[in-house]
Amino acid sequence: MGNFKGHALPGSFFLIAGLWWTVKYSLWYATRRNKSAGAGRIATRALQHRLEIIEGAVILSFSVIGILGEQLATGGPKFHLYDSSTQHWDKLMNWQHTTMYLFFALAGVTSLTVHSTDGAPLALDRLLLGLAFFNEGFLFLYHLHGRDMLDVHVHMLLLYAVFGGAIICFLEVFHRGNILLELLRAALCVLQGSWFWQIAFVLYPPSEVQWDLSDHNNMMFITMCYSWHLAFALLTVAVAHTIVLCAVRSKLRRMPPMEMGLLKPREREGDSEDEVF
Amino acid sequence: MGNFKGHALPGSFFLIAGLWWTVKYSLWYATRRNKSAGAGRIATRALQHRLEIIEGAVILSFSVIGILGEQLATGGPKFHLYDSSTQHWDKLMNWQHTTMYLFFALAGVTSLTVHSTDGAPLALDRLLLGLAFFNEGFLFLYHLHGRDMLDVHVHMLLLYAVFGGAIICFLEVFHRGNILLELLRAALCVLQGSWFWQIAFVLYPPSEVQWDLSDHNNMMFITMCYSWHLAFALLTVAVAHTIVLCAVRSKLRRMPPMEMGLLKPREREGDSEDEVF
Amino acid sequence: MGNFKGHALPGSFFLIAGLWWTVKYSLWYATRRNKSAGAGRIATRALQHRLEIIEGAVILSFSVIGILGEQLATGGPKFHLYDSSTQHWDKLMNWQHTTMYLFFALAGVTSLTVHSTDGAPLALDRLLLGLAFFNEGFLFLYHLHGRDMLDVHVHMLLLYAVFGGAIICFLEVFHRGNILLELLRAALCVLQGSWFWQIAFVLYPPSEVQWDLSDHNNMMFITMCYSWHLAFALLTVAVAHTIVLCAVRSKLRRMPPMEMGLLKPREREGDSEDEVF
Amino acid sequence: MGNFKGHALPGSFFLIAGLWWTVKYSLWYATRRNKSAGAGRIATRALQHRLEIIEGAVILSFSVIGILGEQLATGGPKFHLYDSSTQHWDKLMNWQHTTMYLFFALAGVTSLTVHSTDGAPLALDRLLLGLAFFNEGFLFLYHLHGRDMLDVHVHMLLLYAVFGGAIICFLEVFHRGNILLELLRAALCVLQGSWFWQIAFVLYPPSEVQWDLSDHNNMMFITMCYSWHLAFALLTVAVAHTIVLCAVRSKLRRMPPMEMGLLKPREREGDSEDEVF
Repeated sequence: MGNFKGHALPGSFFLIAGLWWTVKYSLWYATRRNKSAGAGRIATRALQHRLEIIEGAVILSFSVIGILGEQLATGGPKFHLYDSSTQHWDKLMNWQHTTMYLFFALAGVTSLTVHSTDGAPLALDRLLLGLAFFNEGFLFLYHLHGRDMLDVHVHMLLLYAVFGGAIICFLEVFHRGNILLELLRAALCVLQGSWFWQIAFVLYPPSEVQWDLSDHNNMMFITMCYSWHLAFALLTVAVAHTIVLCAVRSKLRRMPPMEMGLLKPREREGDSEDEVF
Repeated sequence: MGNFKGHALPGSFFLIAGLWWTVKYSLWYATRRNKSAGAGRIATRALQHRLEIIEGAVILSFSVIGILGEQLATGGPKFHLYDSSTQHWDKLMNWQHTTMYLFFALAGVTSLTVHSTDGAPLALDRLLLGLAFFNEGFLFLYHLHGRDMLDVHVHMLLLYAVFGGAIICFLEVFHRGNILLELLRAALCVLQGSWFWQIAFVLYPPSEVQWDLSDHNNMMFITMCYSWHLAFALLTVAVAHTIVLCAVRSKLRRMPPMEMGLLKPREREGDSEDEVF
Repeated sequence: MGNFKGHALPGSFFLIAGLWWTVKYSLWYATRRNKSAGAGRIATRALQHRLEIIEGAVILSFSVIGILGEQLATGGPKFHLYDSSTQHWDKLMNWQHTTMYLFFALAGVTSLTVHSTDGAPLALDRLLLGLAFFNEGFLFLYHLHGRDMLDVHVHMLLLYAVFGGAIICFLEVFHRGNILLELLRAALCVLQGSWFWQIAFVLYPPSEVQWDLSDHNNMMFITMCYSWHLAFALLTVAVAHTIVLCAVRSKLRRMPPMEMGLLKPREREGDSEDEVF
Repeated sequence: MGNFKGHALPGSFFLIAGLWWTVKYSLWYATRRNKSAGAGRIATRALQHRLEIIEGAVILSFSVIGILGEQLATGGPKFHLYDSSTQHWDKLMNWQHTTMYLFFALAGVTSLTVHSTDGAPLALDRLLLGLAFFNEGFLFLYHLHGRDMLDVHVHMLLLYAVFGGAIICFLEVFHRGNILLELLRAALCVLQGSWFWQIAFVLYPPSEVQWDLSDHNNMMFITMCYSWHLAFALLTVAVAHTIVLCAVRSKLRRMPPMEMGLLKPREREGDSEDEVF
């Protein structure tokens, strides 16, 4: 889908995913820190469990929608891969996007399996998410042959966020529950989302003025622009994180103190799932 | 051996190795998890020991067969390296493949030594396996000069699986017994195997229709095809892993409960060798 | 600011920062080592806290000064980004430098927040410092298109120190308080500072004699020169480290022994902040 | 020193260093493993200490000899850097080699300081050794402009061993005393040494027959040759390691059993210095 919507749509998905991760991990973090103050009552383990399963299901359904959209939309290949009349591959672009969604679908299925059964090791969800990001970057890397200089450049810049996200997922396989890695991943996801929107505005500007795709000054501006997006993503995550922390704290203050007899079992219930690993 | 069989043969070896590793590590994993249920009786330490030795012997013998095949087959150099009459190196291709097999033979010998004596540190087998993969990738990297675009590309893609396998082996030197790393290595090995078959079909198609080795569309298709092979490898490993886990569990359920007096010593016998490290 | 002062100024900042870090971390290190001898009285935890806050404030104010300098100096863009009359981006160089300073300002703000409140995880200051270095290197990397060979080369060499510093900051997120990493970061910062001065002398020589920017011999000399700067940076850090260690030791010897009753609480006060992490 | 001796000399040094490291680390390893059998009497801590100091002194003196050789030999620059008559840098080759030796001299000084005083952290010797290897590779990397294809290639291959050694040294900063890392470093050092000899024979053949420096077949042969050198280095280290282990064991068997009263203090004396870290 080489048009405005084809970049704005995944951009919105990644923006929402990044914000959602920020809220989720900030909530877990606040729960762990204020455990003695009874924060376990806000985010119990059962709630965590349910949220993880919902997240997996949402990722899976969005990926399936993406696959169907790429295949069945007007101009899509409708699951035909090879046009034997012209002896050419048919709409390889759409197939490549389908493949990207496929790996995110795999990550969603894995997340569902890991959190709804107890047979699989917990870190598997991060491994598959890392592979999904890696696969996205891998396909983008060999996707750009023969395009305009600026077109290539904006997609190359995207790879920093994509491969950065993949590396952080792989690190999380070994350092699960590290709040810094989780928030950095969320920030890179926000960056990826806002950059998709930027690409849409650069390559398919809704206004009359077109960008000169081979001007060196535009290259330099776009590079700097990427830094600004990164700064914006960091600020967004920081603000969302602070709001969640403050909300949890103020809610805890308004809660009546628990009776001591109830404290022990509830606290244990509030243990983060990640600590079980 | 620049022909169909020369790619299909190593491909089959890697496919079998990947599947075998999946089964082996899944079995160890199930044993560790269900230790209290008496799983030690299914895979005792003595059995683990014997299997590791057999694996080392098989790798060694296959590598020796590979070396002899490369050297003595029709058109092979028959251990002559330099043709002094023409002042040229003789059949360097075969010699390079011989060198690849040589490092896997070294890895096999090391595995045999590590598991049959107790003088060497356990992680040495992974280090040598990692070096064997690294050497394979290293030789492929300088192997491709002056070939067709698609020919170069399919071999470059192979390097992702080869170097990925090497990196995971080196990580296993420090994180031995991590089921995720072991299964990921198995998946990359399956990927390598199935990709060798793909290369065989692309470069030496058994049908009449030849691939256009300099068509950009073919490049893009092949890249995407690699992603599908990766997804296929992940699925294969996941299915094999699940079957082994279920088989172990159903076998445990059918076993009569042990007498308590026997439990302690047998359990200890079932300790995974890896945990000794 | 493509002139002598534009390189000498940041060079001086980095030189001072590198020396300051050497002194600070050497002082903490000496405090930790000689805790039993009462070194806690020299660098108490309250002092550490105050120093970290001052450091954050200094980084922040220098970055703001840098931003204002780049924007408002003669020839600066004065916060205009786009010249709509000529339809061109305005003074992108200055804007890029502004962006570099912006990330160091973010790192300063983060350091202030982390050390003055207790809501944020301690390692966050290193993460943001690492991102600031990474962003500096990232912008330099796409900054050099179409310049002279030697001009490109001296800036590429700078990237070793910049990205090296970024990698060490990321390592410190996981290995906080490792004196070797801290001193290596200080040394790379000194290297960066002295190399900025070297660039200033090469590209804008104050003497009459100009460097031939396309001579291969100059390239080779400059490369070697970089090694000398590294050796000089290592020596500087080593000498400063030794002086601090000796000063702490001689001061401890001259201090009257504490009374035993006072020892316990003061010692605890002297605990390094880093160990709390 | 672009001649046979100029490559054979450092080659011999690296060969000896690699063998020496194999023997040293194998001895420490055998001591640690057989501590209960009284192996502490073979390699006491005092002996370890003395050997480390001797090693540092030898590295330092060889480096100083190398520097003096490069500078004062016939055709050397005799510490003149700039020829103001011709306005050219003087004998940059020799100066680059001098710089390489300089960093190994720094590593030697550091090793001496670390092991003879107790002010510096133990891992500092590995950090400086790593920097020395890194600097060697860094200078080689920018050393090769405009030479023959095969000349460039044989030096590029050298970089695998050089940077590999640097990476392992940096890993040892965090994983000190890991026998696998120590032996792998020794093997890469042997590889570097034997490859210097190979370079000498390729570029300055003592026989009449010259190598064709732009023949693609020679490139392919040399690449494979590098793998053989690696296999040879691994075998050499394995054999030397086995001999040392066997020698220690047979010596222990011939030693009379110690009296129990003496066992405790001696054992402690035999603790590896590395474990103190």
